Amino acid sequence: MNTNNRTEISTIGEFGLIERLTSDIKPVNKETVTAVGDDAAILQFSSDEEVLISTDLLMEGIHFDLTYFPLKHLGYKAAMVNFSDIYAMNGTPKQITVSLALSKKFCIEDVEDFYAGVKLACAQHGVDIVGGDTSASLTGLAISITVTGTAPKGTAVKRSTAKETDLICVSGNLGAAYMGLQLLEREKIATAGKDIQPDFAGKEYILERQLKPEARRDIIERLREENIRPTAMIDISDGLSSELMHICKQSSVGCRIYEERIPIDYQTAIMAEELNMNVMTCALNGGEDYELLFTVPIADHEKVAAMKDIRVIGHIVSESMGNAMITRDGVEMQLRAQGWTMESAE
Amino acid sequence: MNTNNRTEISTIGEFGLIERLTSDIKPVNKETVTAVGDDAAILQFSSDEEVLISTDLLMEGIHFDLTYFPLKHLGYKAAMVNFSDIYAMNGTPKQITVSLALSKKFCIEDVEDFYAGVKLACAQHGVDIVGGDTSASLTGLAISITVTGTAPKGTAVKRSTAKETDLICVSGNLGAAYMGLQLLEREKIATAGKDIQPDFAGKEYILERQLKPEARRDIIERLREENIRPTAMIDISDGLSSELMHICKQSSVGCRIYEERIPIDYQTAIMAEELNMNVMTCALNGGEDYELLFTVPIADHEKVAAMKDIRVIGHIVSESMGNAMITRDGVEMQLRAQGWTMESAE
Repeated sequence: MNTNNRTEISTIGEFGLIERLTSDIKPVNKETVTAVGDDAAILQFSSDEEVLISTDLLMEGIHFDLTYFPLKHLGYKAAMVNFSDIYAMNGTPKQITVSLALSKKFCIEDVEDFYAGVKLACAQHGVDIVGGDTSASLTGLAISITVTGTAPKGTAVKRSTAKETDLICVSGNLGAAYMGLQLLEREKIATAGKDIQPDFAGKEYILERQLKPEARRDIIERLREENIRPTAMIDISDGLSSELMHICKQSSVGCRIYEERIPIDYQTAIMAEELNMNVMTCALNGGEDYELLFTVPIADHEKVAAMKDIRVIGHIVSESMGNAMITRDGVEMQLRAQGWTMESAE
Repeated sequence: MNTNNRTEISTIGEFGLIERLTSDIKPVNKETVTAVGDDAAILQFSSDEEVLISTDLLMEGIHFDLTYFPLKHLGYKAAMVNFSDIYAMNGTPKQITVSLALSKKFCIEDVEDFYAGVKLACAQHGVDIVGGDTSASLTGLAISITVTGTAPKGTAVKRSTAKETDLICVSGNLGAAYMGLQLLEREKIATAGKDIQPDFAGKEYILERQLKPEARRDIIERLREENIRPTAMIDISDGLSSELMHICKQSSVGCRIYEERIPIDYQTAIMAEELNMNVMTCALNGGEDYELLFTVPIADHEKVAAMKDIRVIGHIVSESMGNAMITRDGVEMQLRAQGWTMESAE
């Protein structure tokens, strides 16, 4: 490893690192339609269909805490977040590979529990497990899942194609998964070493959002039924603010969203109140919502406004106007991106 | 995690675990031709071509030791072993995704070194990097690479299709990568905390086999030129013995190989002598050779015997005869499989 000329990764962050590593990559194969830079890469192996591929690597202690995360739920979630990447391309997930690195604390039943969750998610979304890898690990569990999906040629929706005046839409509600995580962390500390059970009464919804997220196939299907084709789309894994800035940067546009339009469930709001946190900050930056964020032509306004569980939260503006949220009291607040940073690691 | 009803993974091993987890998986998508159980899964998205997909997860401390493994070499090797899986299906690698989990000890230059190796391997084999994921890690480096490749429909070669009387062939030579690893481990101990350089004179070949393995595209191409289509094929990552038993088990056949036919480089033999190890054990079980092991119809004997860098080492027999090696003194020795075991982990 480099000892001289060290530049800490924290100085450029996750997205800076990816850009630095991949900016010189030029695809050479005719089958590679688009490579790095979206929820999934687009590959084309036939004249009428495109293949989508996406991958995630999850590390114990960084992405999940087995103290309160049951392995079956973890398997379900690990599969689901990959399906979400394919739906975010307007595609249909078809196959996954599942790789696990396991330390000695795990027994066969543990791995079976994990797989039971993966299989349940696959059964619900019609996805095949087609391969994988298992190996040892010195410390804890590492999970790598790669998903492939398909989309009829030319129908995959990228991040880079939002246009000025497009409406910005989001499915479901935001911040709940993050509040569920805060609750689990609080109860972990409160019950540590004591013979008491955590108190989750009235908090079932935010827990479920953290422990059992659902990829929004239903939204993709209903958009098709309504004949609405998003101009750009991404799934919300790192928080609304960060994802919206991906769309804007890659589409060379700006955005205006309205605080009063951001969908927040009442359990999320109550939990934020209890923990003395700003609920809007949680909704903007919380992450792990796995809702869909997409843009549609302004001509689709009536149709999309009438759709259940979809909220129009703002619109696309020119790049020079930047990315901002209009607060309830009419102030323009600059949006900031928050991706993964090395600060969370030891 | 399970505390009652614990069955240690070591009781069934890697292959037993995979079988237990995947035996009930039934593909539901028409595009899934074959799933778990080969070097790569076979997917079909068009009428004239099949897509191959394979994945590997590599963990620091288990699969590599950064004390002596330069990051650029590690990137090169991590990509190369994935290409090897596609060649082992008689396919052409086309795209990879690269995911890294990094602890704080790594700086940007380290990750760039790693990527430089990946990119070099990709450039040599015409492969595109199409995606990936980077995240934090509490402890060390985890690498997950997924590769996709293509093969004209019906030409992918599986493990399960070897036939009685087929000849068993192997490319290159065996045991060198393992001896290179032993040498690196010896010099790591010998030079630890001392201001001396390791002594690698005359050992360049076995070091290169460990630090810079090459996927055997050349063999695949020459087999095509000679119009030889292997009946079954696998790449040697876990050792000849283990891989040959995969072919035999999945093809429901047995095998006879001949000790005197096993190809071993003289540097491998010298190193084994120096370390007081049995060179044949190293060749049979060493692993990381990334040579191709394949079977051909007996009618191709003359053609294959005349090919440079390919050795006919035995033949396929009926399943009831089992898997054995005939030693130089004519004794039949049962082959044993050695996959990954949890014993190597803490």
